[in-house]
Amino acid sequence: MSFENYFPIWDKLTDLQQEHIRSAVISKSVKKGAIIHSGTTDCNGLILLKSGQLRAFIVSEEGREVTLFRLLDLDICLLSASCMFNSISFDVTVEAEKDTEFYLIPTEAYRSVMAESAALSNYTNELMAARFSEVMWLIEQIMWKSLDKRVATFLLEESALEGSEMLTITHESIANHIGTHREVVTRMLHYMQNEKMVSLSRGQVTIINKELLEKLRNS
Amino acid sequence: MSFENYFPIWDKLTDLQQEHIRSAVISKSVKKGAIIHSGTTDCNGLILLKSGQLRAFIVSEEGREVTLFRLLDLDICLLSASCMFNSISFDVTVEAEKDTEFYLIPTEAYRSVMAESAALSNYTNELMAARFSEVMWLIEQIMWKSLDKRVATFLLEESALEGSEMLTITHESIANHIGTHREVVTRMLHYMQNEKMVSLSRGQVTIINKELLEKLRNS
Repeated sequence: MSFENYFPIWDKLTDLQQEHIRSAVISKSVKKGAIIHSGTTDCNGLILLKSGQLRAFIVSEEGREVTLFRLLDLDICLLSASCMFNSISFDVTVEAEKDTEFYLIPTEAYRSVMAESAALSNYTNELMAARFSEVMWLIEQIMWKSLDKRVATFLLEESALEGSEMLTITHESIANHIGTHREVVTRMLHYMQNEKMVSLSRGQVTIINKELLEKLRNS
Repeated sequence: MSFENYFPIWDKLTDLQQEHIRSAVISKSVKKGAIIHSGTTDCNGLILLKSGQLRAFIVSEEGREVTLFRLLDLDICLLSASCMFNSISFDVTVEAEKDTEFYLIPTEAYRSVMAESAALSNYTNELMAARFSEVMWLIEQIMWKSLDKRVATFLLEESALEGSEMLTITHESIANHIGTHREVVTRMLHYMQNEKMVSLSRGQVTIINKELLEKLRNS
């Protein structure tokens, strides 16, 4: 897919504006594990995902991580160009969870077209609103869902993403994703094993009764 | 202050656009306790605060509240016009914490000018980014600050807002603000009383050693 298709409002840009962006776009590919964007130290531009999977997360001073959202095919990541907005004062890290290919629209090219195009600016507003909504959803998860539901939700989502019941993931990593401590996750996983929802082995969690997990998540 | 001054980019609107907004603006005043905006049930428009104080919060299904941010003089509240953005999928309630006067720019007038003005749209992007940043700050508070620090932070902020060491506030209300249970707050306040940071009486919390509270907050 060409990068123009990521923008439903592409036709509303002038020829000059289209050319300004088109001539700046770069195609990139990174290996699983690569850090594509990190906090305030860089501000490369908008990421338009072609294939693969990215994870956006924040890191506390003590090194704890919380996943904010995932980016899959055709998603656009605005926060990797967060320096475009004077009012954004938080640091997000974006890493590749799989080998990933993407277009990069450098910040300056995007910003200069956005400054004169109401269409592109309004579309950017929608992108920001969508990410804002995902983060609000996360707050509700954290505040109001008890830990068992959060772990169940995470395992089910991960399983759907991977297309497998067998997840290769450490307790530490699950804890980072949902923003708690490893010990807490280990305790919860053992509870779930006792309940015959999952089975545990070194570095792996296998869902053995999806219905029970879903029931817990929806309870 | 006239409402034009809320917009640093006012001069970049055409005469027609200015007139479109100017003719739609309404002045309002509400009493302390009034609910100005509630979830998806209404979408009146942008609120431009003249005086008073508003609180934006979310409510769980069980009725628990978490304060997202406060709006003080000269602040603009975008989320009371959240229906402008298709991608916003969360419900925010806005209530007056003091008698409050504000301008209201009805959603339709604002949206139609924003659709054609890159300047207004970009400014709106900044407003959204600022609120987004406040909510990200809140996530960090929730995830990474232990409860004692959160209560200390809340009491110090409240004291600064009220301009008084003596706060008329219930434990229930503090719990709502920081997203936990009353019992937990009561336990923490008794701890702080024992530590000679605060003194407690019915419906009141008085800060008796600000230095100690600040030390706890910054620890």
